[in-house]
Amino acid sequence: MAKFLTNREENYAQWYNDLVIKADLAENSVVRGCMVIKPYGYAIWEKIQAELDRKFKATGHVNAYFPIFIPKSFFSKEAKHVEGFAKECAIVTHYRLMKDESGNGLIVDPSAKLEEELIVRPTSETIIWNSYKNWIQSYRDLPILINQWANVVRWEMRTRLFLRTTEFLWQEGHTAHATREEAVEETERMLGVYSDFAENFMALPVIKGYKSENERFAGAIDTYTIEALMQDGKALQAGTSHFLGQNFAKAFDVQFTDKTGKLDYVWATSWGLSTRVIGALIMAHSDNNGLVLPPRLAPIQVVIIPIYKNSEQLETISAAARKIMSALEVRGISVKYDDRDNNKPGWKFANYELKGVPVRIAIGPRDIENSTVEVARRDTLEKEIIPMNGIEAHIAGLLDDIQKNIYFKASEFRKTNTFYADKWDDFVNLLDNQGGFIMAHWDGTSETEEKIKEETKATIRCIPFDSPDEDGKCIYSGKPSKRRVLFARSY
Amino acid sequence: MAKFLTNREENYAQWYNDLVIKADLAENSVVRGCMVIKPYGYAIWEKIQAELDRKFKATGHVNAYFPIFIPKSFFSKEAKHVEGFAKECAIVTHYRLMKDESGNGLIVDPSAKLEEELIVRPTSETIIWNSYKNWIQSYRDLPILINQWANVVRWEMRTRLFLRTTEFLWQEGHTAHATREEAVEETERMLGVYSDFAENFMALPVIKGYKSENERFAGAIDTYTIEALMQDGKALQAGTSHFLGQNFAKAFDVQFTDKTGKLDYVWATSWGLSTRVIGALIMAHSDNNGLVLPPRLAPIQVVIIPIYKNSEQLETISAAARKIMSALEVRGISVKYDDRDNNKPGWKFANYELKGVPVRIAIGPRDIENSTVEVARRDTLEKEIIPMNGIEAHIAGLLDDIQKNIYFKASEFRKTNTFYADKWDDFVNLLDNQGGFIMAHWDGTSETEEKIKEETKATIRCIPFDSPDEDGKCIYSGKPSKRRVLFARSY
Repeated sequence: MAKFLTNREENYAQWYNDLVIKADLAENSVVRGCMVIKPYGYAIWEKIQAELDRKFKATGHVNAYFPIFIPKSFFSKEAKHVEGFAKECAIVTHYRLMKDESGNGLIVDPSAKLEEELIVRPTSETIIWNSYKNWIQSYRDLPILINQWANVVRWEMRTRLFLRTTEFLWQEGHTAHATREEAVEETERMLGVYSDFAENFMALPVIKGYKSENERFAGAIDTYTIEALMQDGKALQAGTSHFLGQNFAKAFDVQFTDKTGKLDYVWATSWGLSTRVIGALIMAHSDNNGLVLPPRLAPIQVVIIPIYKNSEQLETISAAARKIMSALEVRGISVKYDDRDNNKPGWKFANYELKGVPVRIAIGPRDIENSTVEVARRDTLEKEIIPMNGIEAHIAGLLDDIQKNIYFKASEFRKTNTFYADKWDDFVNLLDNQGGFIMAHWDGTSETEEKIKEETKATIRCIPFDSPDEDGKCIYSGKPSKRRVLFARSY
Repeated sequence: MAKFLTNREENYAQWYNDLVIKADLAENSVVRGCMVIKPYGYAIWEKIQAELDRKFKATGHVNAYFPIFIPKSFFSKEAKHVEGFAKECAIVTHYRLMKDESGNGLIVDPSAKLEEELIVRPTSETIIWNSYKNWIQSYRDLPILINQWANVVRWEMRTRLFLRTTEFLWQEGHTAHATREEAVEETERMLGVYSDFAENFMALPVIKGYKSENERFAGAIDTYTIEALMQDGKALQAGTSHFLGQNFAKAFDVQFTDKTGKLDYVWATSWGLSTRVIGALIMAHSDNNGLVLPPRLAPIQVVIIPIYKNSEQLETISAAARKIMSALEVRGISVKYDDRDNNKPGWKFANYELKGVPVRIAIGPRDIENSTVEVARRDTLEKEIIPMNGIEAHIAGLLDDIQKNIYFKASEFRKTNTFYADKWDDFVNLLDNQGGFIMAHWDGTSETEEKIKEETKATIRCIPFDSPDEDGKCIYSGKPSKRRVLFARSY
């Protein structure tokens, strides 16, 4: 087998980067921190989009589009939002270039300076609530359930393909409600959509919970999150849903008349999931041979490779392959038949393993004689000989098995890498030598959380929804605590 | 009928603007020239995207994503491109804001100045060809057939909703080929995709042709276009496909080894279609009652409205309506049942006419008795009473009829508004008093074209592919000409 990648156990970060590049998912662009999402990587994003969009619409949402530029002054309107988002950002100050008279090239036309600078959106609450102000007068105008598919820009200092890039793609939902209860319900509903998507499509078990105050979205009353565990023992936040209370309605003066005729501020939520989850998808399941993609998000679910010595053999094999292809396509399974003659079967095998194609079918002259094919599954690398007759039902079942098995493996990994720590030394030891999720008691103060972060680089990933009541003592301060929270180092 | 709109015959521009606003398609945002695409307008864009994306994939293309920012220097690399695109644009000069120490608010941090300014993409040839440089070594790496769905920014001075906005949404295809022939073929193929889409989905007859040198894409050897006629007699360019020759390959030094081992520059095409076509869709078909949407692009194809006096009646009607709904949905027809009790049927009728829903079904107590419904078509405003039994087949046929009829109407309009002019006075008269497409002779020089534009505001929309050879004299200069070209005033 060709070795494309740095060994995962030797250098996880390098393995990840190699994988993204070699599997043709994305690459760095000439623009600092901005990536090019290549067709194979983008095809995964399209599958993510299609499923999420379906789920959003099934829960009553519609899509819309708001401007990419936000006037600078908007960021100052919500007191906490400004702290979180108005710092590192792309700032448009001018709107015209002109020829450099002293030589060749272009310079900024100094006379084309904007009166107020525009910020390339890092998130759209402000520009959207400024619009909602004109859309909402009465309770009859509510709820507004809007989602936007968009690019956003945050001027990150240290970037990594998919995981943290200056520009990234995402969806951001922004909803407006007449009551607090309804908005809280929406916040929960959308976290449910994300966790359902993560578990059933990304094959990624996640822990649902609240963010601590330190880790909350800037401007939110409450941030709900789904947290996943990567194979190097670090956590990754895969999606967040925010209950914004009346903060943005107050900042942009969005009031409505309720059923009793009383004027009140509108209640809000926002929720987002980005191309970052492709990083999670890669890191959670892949191995030293390359990507391992869950079938439900794999752009190619099955690849068929002919093994032949001459063109007559190829012809017979191709006829059989095409029959299998159409039988699979009828079932909605995406298939590629790779009969290119510039690479040997062995190279192709390795290449599709690298690309994480869940099922490989190989057909040789012997298979034709016996009416069989060789079927290999990417997750376990197991091979078996299967009769051609009824192959489509077998493959459909196999894809389901693979989806389940990838999820099962990730769940088992998380199980063996979730720890309960009650002593500070154990806590530090676990973080330094083992990684993983650590359930520990915390006294509930931001001060303690910050100290823990300073000393260990671990943060509170969330306060799990299902964390049971339990009396204990804070792992750091020793002060009383009522429940355990989830600590980890994270991406 | 409620009058929502300025009369189309009185003030076409105002009618258009009213329509966009009142039908809830889009609105101006607080950011100069940037629009908010509201859910109903965005739903039309989603239908456009879905169909085009399907067509692109069926012709072998894949999607990818390139950075929104382009280094300033890239624009100077292609000699003509710089003239067309590097003038009015959004320029990012800084990447950090800081608190204004003298008061409240935020100011640009002067220490966070970019070494090289970044331009928000007005089109992506330069950044994409800079990437292709690393992707292409040999003929085996070709062709590259990539499309991108993205937002772009051009700093327009005069903007109009959908038709010309500072930020707009579009798709841009960027392909790379080993031979000139293949690239020309691709340019033609994609114009074919656009014209097929315009005619069969937008119900918009278009004329395919070449752009004159003046009107060509900056950096193209040849620009192909589809030109449509609006109801006010002005032309609108609905999509363009560019044969770029080796211009961008030379500008970014993209060479490949061909089959014979010889090094050559890569051949390129690009092609794009934007949210502007929503403006065309509106202007081509709509009337004083509101939008007229071709069924294939209508977010809601059928609306059902109950007419009742009490809740018992509503219950019986709702049961019948839901039966019809599911029968229609099985056929893939999108239906809305509007049983909201806060508006009267008359208001709803007018509102769905305004929104261009192709078919309206009204059901009252009398209909229940007779097992009938009232069916109204938006294009002709005709109504008929139809038996409930088998209604789904009737509606499916009716939607087809409406699609064809809207196309037919637009074709007839174009036919009666296409003129042949041989004298300058006639030419000017037609433009001033009639509008429409004018086929006239032209001497082939940019100079003449510019003079005609100066004197009449008309431009050469295209040199139609199917314009026959015909000896004549230039309408302006009297010099010899071999074929007629298409003149019009345009959006």
